[in-house]
Amino acid sequence: MRKFVGGSSLSSLLIRSFQLQNRHRSLSSSQSRFLSSSTIPLLHSVTTMGGPSSNISPPVTLQTINPKVGSFRAYAFMGDYFALAKVKLGLEWVGNILETCTKGFGDGYVVKCEYAVRGEIVTLAQRLQEDLKANPGSHSFDEILYCNIGNPQSLGQQPITFFREVLALCDHPTILDISETQGLFSADAIERAWQILDQIPGRATGAYSHSQGIKGLRDTIAAGIEERDGYPADPNDIFLTDGASPAVHMMMQLLIRSEKDGILCPIPQYPLYSASITLHGGTLVPYYLDEASGWGLETSELKKQLEAAKSKGIDVRALVVINPGNPTGQVLAEDNQKEIVEFCKKEGLVLLADEVYQENVYVPDKKFHSFKKVSRSMGYGEDDISLVSFQSVSKGFYGECGKRGGYMEVTGFTADIREQIYKMASVNLCSNISGQILASLVMSPPKVGDESYESYSAEKDGILSSLARRAKTLEDAFNNLEGVTCNKAEGAMYLFPRIALPQKAIKAAEAANTAPDAFYCRELLNATGIVVVPGSGFGQVPGTWHFRCTILPQEDKIPAIVTRLTDFHKGFMDKFRD
Amino acid sequence: MRKFVGGSSLSSLLIRSFQLQNRHRSLSSSQSRFLSSSTIPLLHSVTTMGGPSSNISPPVTLQTINPKVGSFRAYAFMGDYFALAKVKLGLEWVGNILETCTKGFGDGYVVKCEYAVRGEIVTLAQRLQEDLKANPGSHSFDEILYCNIGNPQSLGQQPITFFREVLALCDHPTILDISETQGLFSADAIERAWQILDQIPGRATGAYSHSQGIKGLRDTIAAGIEERDGYPADPNDIFLTDGASPAVHMMMQLLIRSEKDGILCPIPQYPLYSASITLHGGTLVPYYLDEASGWGLETSELKKQLEAAKSKGIDVRALVVINPGNPTGQVLAEDNQKEIVEFCKKEGLVLLADEVYQENVYVPDKKFHSFKKVSRSMGYGEDDISLVSFQSVSKGFYGECGKRGGYMEVTGFTADIREQIYKMASVNLCSNISGQILASLVMSPPKVGDESYESYSAEKDGILSSLARRAKTLEDAFNNLEGVTCNKAEGAMYLFPRIALPQKAIKAAEAANTAPDAFYCRELLNATGIVVVPGSGFGQVPGTWHFRCTILPQEDKIPAIVTRLTDFHKGFMDKFRD
Repeated sequence: MRKFVGGSSLSSLLIRSFQLQNRHRSLSSSQSRFLSSSTIPLLHSVTTMGGPSSNISPPVTLQTINPKVGSFRAYAFMGDYFALAKVKLGLEWVGNILETCTKGFGDGYVVKCEYAVRGEIVTLAQRLQEDLKANPGSHSFDEILYCNIGNPQSLGQQPITFFREVLALCDHPTILDISETQGLFSADAIERAWQILDQIPGRATGAYSHSQGIKGLRDTIAAGIEERDGYPADPNDIFLTDGASPAVHMMMQLLIRSEKDGILCPIPQYPLYSASITLHGGTLVPYYLDEASGWGLETSELKKQLEAAKSKGIDVRALVVINPGNPTGQVLAEDNQKEIVEFCKKEGLVLLADEVYQENVYVPDKKFHSFKKVSRSMGYGEDDISLVSFQSVSKGFYGECGKRGGYMEVTGFTADIREQIYKMASVNLCSNISGQILASLVMSPPKVGDESYESYSAEKDGILSSLARRAKTLEDAFNNLEGVTCNKAEGAMYLFPRIALPQKAIKAAEAANTAPDAFYCRELLNATGIVVVPGSGFGQVPGTWHFRCTILPQEDKIPAIVTRLTDFHKGFMDKFRD
Repeated sequence: MRKFVGGSSLSSLLIRSFQLQNRHRSLSSSQSRFLSSSTIPLLHSVTTMGGPSSNISPPVTLQTINPKVGSFRAYAFMGDYFALAKVKLGLEWVGNILETCTKGFGDGYVVKCEYAVRGEIVTLAQRLQEDLKANPGSHSFDEILYCNIGNPQSLGQQPITFFREVLALCDHPTILDISETQGLFSADAIERAWQILDQIPGRATGAYSHSQGIKGLRDTIAAGIEERDGYPADPNDIFLTDGASPAVHMMMQLLIRSEKDGILCPIPQYPLYSASITLHGGTLVPYYLDEASGWGLETSELKKQLEAAKSKGIDVRALVVINPGNPTGQVLAEDNQKEIVEFCKKEGLVLLADEVYQENVYVPDKKFHSFKKVSRSMGYGEDDISLVSFQSVSKGFYGECGKRGGYMEVTGFTADIREQIYKMASVNLCSNISGQILASLVMSPPKVGDESYESYSAEKDGILSSLARRAKTLEDAFNNLEGVTCNKAEGAMYLFPRIALPQKAIKAAEAANTAPDAFYCRELLNATGIVVVPGSGFGQVPGTWHFRCTILPQEDKIPAIVTRLTDFHKGFMDKFRD
């Protein structure tokens, strides 16, 4: 049932995408920045919270906020801001993040974009959940199955015991000396807590650290990187951050001077990138991953998009690569990575490598290679390539999203630029110490012979092998659906199936003032309680429709998801088949 | 020994300050944004880390980074970025943050500003510390006394036991059910951990939360605010953040559209504000606190500066008030706060109230009143005043800087604007859960009858009364020095004494290419091991010289600090007396 749009059709769509972008950009800034006053009543009519009712206009209105904030689109899958690609341009649906998120919209268009993030689907999911609680049996399903966000512990995944033992002991070190503690905590957790405390000046886990993070923890992380890659890593290159997102923002803030600065980003992409580029006033330069070759990343496509951007006067500064891919799940081959490194070196681009899913690889024929390892293996050192690798404690098998730990490894920048990055890191003083400690633990887990090694390994393998099984089961289920094709999740935590929606469904979506993929997702939720994210939240080749589904529901829920999904899809197709 | 510059002299200095600012602003942006290539060798000559040596220019250089990043000045008191006010304009030293930090410098001026943040003093302190370790007795002092940063636990302050017990139990909840835990943890800490876990969906402390923070914790915080103020607080108004800094950035990002948008900030100020305004491309509109009246905040001064800014075409959006003051330590009187509220209401300004030192008040005749309480007591509600209150777990008597917890309470904004704030909060998904938990604990500590109440109260009172004693001892010591005057630290954690430096010292500083206050601080460090921050890091009336000294060294160190400081100062004055 696999069917794909071929390369030539892709190209014409890309050109159109650029034309649209430029049409927007040519609007005068005064036009593009604000909502016109005539469109405001539209928005006010849907506000429900209390607000100023006096006649004096309030100090802050939608017309007077930073237009970069007004125009970017919130995360497609967070809370109330679940994507609903409601944006319509002329008579054509444009679900692509490029068209919906970059600056320069006409006024009415921005209002629609604001509408888009109001979050009908998650709001709907939450309403259904309340309904089920109040009136059990009121729907044809008995629970809401959240497959919309990579938040493993929210779905019942348990934290790795060793990591949490060490965190607890570092939070309350006074119990380290008490003998009862040995009955409650493993010996190596106690030992590790002592080691970490000794790395912290004054053993003060409640003090601000060095702006880059505690030096001893950076030493541990650098050693972990060395062990992973077989090449040296310098603790002074590590910047510990509250998750990977602030690190990405920092680099965008450094690189982007104006809308004339471009960042090459994959489409589909994780919306952090589009949001961050928009907030910092730059231009997202898209390159499309090739769905037909398993979301392949072709350097010919990179080159084509780079040239196209240059011809529009865009100064392309950096290339974002997400490996393993989000939302696409592909794992890059080493040879492919070498081509990418070569491309960045030749074109003078900073390589921004999102490597947060480095522990999430599910297929035996693929292996994660860091871009640093690949570039070093090519003989390229500090002087040859500017490379930033992002890592997070939120992903992997540990999935510690709430701890907000992460780091970036910054290599190949001159000392003066590193000083500027350090300065930016200093503005928020430091990242949280628990997250810093956890980042060091993730990069130096228990080793053979440690008391916790066996339980740690069992927990890790249990989670990863279960994720691999879940990915395969869901992939097969999607590929068994009429008109649906789904590439393998080689890594990460998501599947991104493509649906060939019948014209009748597309028309019905239009009538409902909804993008077709969002229409499908809403119907799915209403019928089954399954929450997934429309492809328009990540970007897709215009005219194609996808959704992102996590592989994170606990394994015992997967069969029910498959059954419900299959039944729903059959009914949907029967209803809308052309 | 108190001597102050009178009001009229202040005014003329302020006018000059504005003139300087405008002179800068009139430079063309191409001139002002980048370092000219001719000035780069200067900078390169001081870089020591390895960087590209090949002939191909690297993808990122000081000429090609975001000029907003290049031009803002890093924190005056963090790590390597200790302020050294090296900036010279014409023949006159300008140590004022306004002149050093805002955009629009001539090229050579920016290079000097970059120089300024290289951090000679902390680097020097660290070198001295290493020296002392390697060669005990190599200096006339035996330890470095860090009085430069409000980081209590780095100086030996112990965390509040109850808070840490709860955090540890929430990090590792599996021990909650084990009987041995009752021997290690207090009963109310165990109970509180259960309560908190029950407020977290799935009890998952490792999951991303709602973008504003966990709803149950926001309920607790809102209840704490209600108890503090006697007026209702809405959990939906609370945005939990990683410390107060990200909250301040969020508001600046929302409000600032261009350099034509101004934010009224106190001078002296906490440099977060100048850094954040610069990073977001706005204009800092200064209002001077009146040193002569104990760092009084006069609304006539606010009005004057507002009008001056308006006449320059600046659209002033907000007023920042820091209460208790940083670096100045004053606590505002309630009547004064009422005038400020009235001013904001009348002028349509958002009131940004930095209230992170609300627990740090040391004088019996002053009391902290939140601006929300004050405005509600005046009968002003949601429709009357837009008010944001910032709170942090880093300050107070708990001083949990490393936990990065905090919140802002956002009131008096329309629903559509709140949606935009929510959207910004969503970009980084959520703040760290440990910080969120701690923020809730700080706002709902143990109560009479709880097992921990007595020990908690003893710890709290011990820290606060000791801080009050330390503040008084240091204040008296400063006022006993020749040519030094020091206002009372009514609250917060700092003293900001003023030094009347002899002309001979000013000339010596000039010869050493250093601002006079930085020269004094460096001499002090070299002679005594005491680290303080030059006033130029916070802003001061041009031609006046100050330094900020924390009251945080443990009490047994205070006598030595006083003795060393007194001896040094006497010697300094003897050497440089005109």
